[in-house]
Amino acid sequence: MPQKPEQALKELKQIINEAALLGSAAALLGWDERTYMPHGGSAHRANQLALLAGMVHDKATSPRVGELIGAIEGSALTKDPLSVNAVNIRELRRFYDKQTKVPKKLVEAIAHAETTGQGIWVEARKKSDFKMFYPSLEKMIDLKKQYAEAVGYEDVVYDALLDDYEPYASTKSVTKVLGKFREELVPFVAKITGSPKKPNTSILERDYPVEKQRLFGELAAAMIGYDFNGGRLDTTAHPFCTGIGPGDCRITTRFNPKHLGQALFGILHEAGHGIYDQGLPEEHWGMPMGDAVSLGIHESQSRMWENMVGRSKPFWEFFFPLAQQTFHESLVGVKFDDFFFAVNDVRPSFVRVEADEVTYNLHILLRFEIEQAIFNGEVKTKDIPKVWNDKFKSYFGIVPTSDAEGCLQDIHWAAGLFGYFATYSLGNLYSAQFFAKAKEDLGDLDAQFAAGKFRPLRDWLRKNIHSQGRRYRAEELVKKVTGKPLDHKPLMKYLSGKFAPLYGVK
Amino acid sequence: MPQKPEQALKELKQIINEAALLGSAAALLGWDERTYMPHGGSAHRANQLALLAGMVHDKATSPRVGELIGAIEGSALTKDPLSVNAVNIRELRRFYDKQTKVPKKLVEAIAHAETTGQGIWVEARKKSDFKMFYPSLEKMIDLKKQYAEAVGYEDVVYDALLDDYEPYASTKSVTKVLGKFREELVPFVAKITGSPKKPNTSILERDYPVEKQRLFGELAAAMIGYDFNGGRLDTTAHPFCTGIGPGDCRITTRFNPKHLGQALFGILHEAGHGIYDQGLPEEHWGMPMGDAVSLGIHESQSRMWENMVGRSKPFWEFFFPLAQQTFHESLVGVKFDDFFFAVNDVRPSFVRVEADEVTYNLHILLRFEIEQAIFNGEVKTKDIPKVWNDKFKSYFGIVPTSDAEGCLQDIHWAAGLFGYFATYSLGNLYSAQFFAKAKEDLGDLDAQFAAGKFRPLRDWLRKNIHSQGRRYRAEELVKKVTGKPLDHKPLMKYLSGKFAPLYGVK
Repeated sequence: MPQKPEQALKELKQIINEAALLGSAAALLGWDERTYMPHGGSAHRANQLALLAGMVHDKATSPRVGELIGAIEGSALTKDPLSVNAVNIRELRRFYDKQTKVPKKLVEAIAHAETTGQGIWVEARKKSDFKMFYPSLEKMIDLKKQYAEAVGYEDVVYDALLDDYEPYASTKSVTKVLGKFREELVPFVAKITGSPKKPNTSILERDYPVEKQRLFGELAAAMIGYDFNGGRLDTTAHPFCTGIGPGDCRITTRFNPKHLGQALFGILHEAGHGIYDQGLPEEHWGMPMGDAVSLGIHESQSRMWENMVGRSKPFWEFFFPLAQQTFHESLVGVKFDDFFFAVNDVRPSFVRVEADEVTYNLHILLRFEIEQAIFNGEVKTKDIPKVWNDKFKSYFGIVPTSDAEGCLQDIHWAAGLFGYFATYSLGNLYSAQFFAKAKEDLGDLDAQFAAGKFRPLRDWLRKNIHSQGRRYRAEELVKKVTGKPLDHKPLMKYLSGKFAPLYGVK
Repeated sequence: MPQKPEQALKELKQIINEAALLGSAAALLGWDERTYMPHGGSAHRANQLALLAGMVHDKATSPRVGELIGAIEGSALTKDPLSVNAVNIRELRRFYDKQTKVPKKLVEAIAHAETTGQGIWVEARKKSDFKMFYPSLEKMIDLKKQYAEAVGYEDVVYDALLDDYEPYASTKSVTKVLGKFREELVPFVAKITGSPKKPNTSILERDYPVEKQRLFGELAAAMIGYDFNGGRLDTTAHPFCTGIGPGDCRITTRFNPKHLGQALFGILHEAGHGIYDQGLPEEHWGMPMGDAVSLGIHESQSRMWENMVGRSKPFWEFFFPLAQQTFHESLVGVKFDDFFFAVNDVRPSFVRVEADEVTYNLHILLRFEIEQAIFNGEVKTKDIPKVWNDKFKSYFGIVPTSDAEGCLQDIHWAAGLFGYFATYSLGNLYSAQFFAKAKEDLGDLDAQFAAGKFRPLRDWLRKNIHSQGRRYRAEELVKKVTGKPLDHKPLMKYLSGKFAPLYGVK
């Protein structure tokens, strides 16, 4: 029925808000599943989550939502394209069109393939048996191709997948920036690998009691600006950050009593995600204007706090004395420079999630290139292990000794998350570009960090990025904030500026 | 539309199951709110819970549900009144009719009065200021009268309220059994109070480290049959038990490092609720046949494990050596008889939640009688403090020195829970009658407990009570299980049998 845009907007907000509330109930159920749920509750939890997911989907894709969006589009309410209403309608339309293009049968087939695929992947990885995983992977790739065809794309099939995680990004533009980055990164990694200078990482592999690590990690997270009044830290097998709603965004970590860095940098990483979430405009919660721009932008925040801040010299100038105080028995007599070098150890390794901030990007490039080759038909599913290992050799100079530490290591493909990996490196690129600009705007950030002052950076991020919700597309946001389009140079400059002196290379 | 009963049943089950799943999501959100939710998340949590509560209500009271129930009633499916289908339809009809009789405006007014009333009550109790609370209480009583008129009642207004917590119970029958109980209980309490024999309760008021209490409490809960694979124990300001769904029923407690009993008996109490929940037939989850009979029957399970088992001599014959081992520094040299007397201390006190198992019932009787007098017009709201104190004097021989430890102590009235208190004493009565019968059926329960064998009792309860869901109304269940209608004698016999020797009275 035709109606006034103002009325339509009110009704639309009501529906979307209800969908968001149900989604946030599901988020809490998901958090609980991974933190405190008793083992026996898993079947029931699956039933609860399936119902909520279905209800959220039904609400957000109901024909009424389409009608209401239509009644608002083109009205005076959306005249200014950067206004709250225009942005909300732009993004809701985009989401609605994409979601309603996918046949329900395909949605269900993908959901089913995700569940069974992940179960099989767990076993296949355990046995390092690619053949065992192959049929599921082949099936998932086929379903994802169908999905891409259903939702449509401008240039290549892979565009449709990438767009799910990094909206508006194109394969072409991402390939371009990551390609240039690769050209400089690969030889840089080779130089570091060839350097005789190596940190003494055993410093970090001493006794670091879990309870002390927790206190130290919480202190660091709070110092950089994660608000524990609206958050908390728990322990899980795989660390994550989950926003439940305004005033409630939780992070998790995994403690290793024989390693200082694993939990600590993980906490800083998740706190970075949390700080973004806590900085989103509360008054727009549930609507796109209250949401994060993309996974890449989200990752830019976590990586910045984890690496550019957390592994920086000034950060440790402030925190190292506290660490020595807290972990006296393991850090007594350790020299600052040795400690700083140890937390910035760079070395080729097989497993992405354990990689340092330099080689990490090679792990991503490799996956991004293989994914594209899969979806443009250049690589057959059965050849993935060979392609993986060949590429690994050329980027890292080493070859995985098994598929478990090669192409079977990540859960993403089993879970249908093709197009996801790129956002990790995009995050690093965004991060370096934002950080360089923040340094320009805020003066001597190093001196601030060394004095324990992290609030100016957080507030700068809050003002320029977090509080903007989805007003700007990722590409636009980068230009708006830094004055330039996304470029690999700031990241390369940051990496060489930090690691060339450490490793005595050029 | 007319349809076949089988089809109608299928559709009805689907709707009720969805309502139950949403309700169970709300239960988890409620648990989280009281355990781990960051402070900042409370406003959002209220929004989530309000939406879920509304959706559950809308689903369960939709006209379609009424049609479907109608299509099944009187069909072959419900021919046997004790069959699963007949019981489910009987109870769904009852719930549907009651719920649909209440105007939405009244539901909202009560919900609103609950929220504001509780806020004011917190302040009023703090200041011991009945006048401050008076307008809210007056308002709530008025709304509850309207509610009772809307849903209807057979005999007196109070019937409608009592029925919300103890379905099918009548004011008349409860008054009768509690009245007889009071006649014997009041003089018995007076005898104990007059006895020169008193336990040395300081035994329990030593150092009992929280972590040890947790381990000991979890051990005891597991020993009596609470399944931690489908449960967990957390710490909250007010202990509770909440069933999330099959395989997930959680309990909480509150630890006092200077008191052994508070957490331990609380854990046994909540574990008793949990054992009931864990024993409900999983295949009927969401429907009445998978649900507990009433609050009174639920309380009979928690009280039995807390008091009749947990404060019994044979229980401690098994657990006292373990307690001495665990809390060596505080229990070394303590004699068994002194310890046993200490955990069975009986003395008049002002606060219900701290009362022992004998005087507890007087606290309930007092409230039950005042509630009735309020709703039949005999007592005006403004006179409640005086009526309370007079009655207190006659039952306990002491008078509260302030309303904070008098009529303002409980949250129930502020939350609109009139009719609730009676279920606590009904629970004690049911409990004693069930326990006496279990002793008949299972032989020497004392010897079993003393040997650490609690499974026979749990399995007896599971078979006779838990697994029956709501097949029998509370009154019928008591008769079915014990062969006799509810009577105060078994409880009086249990109390005098245990406490008369302890206090050297008759």
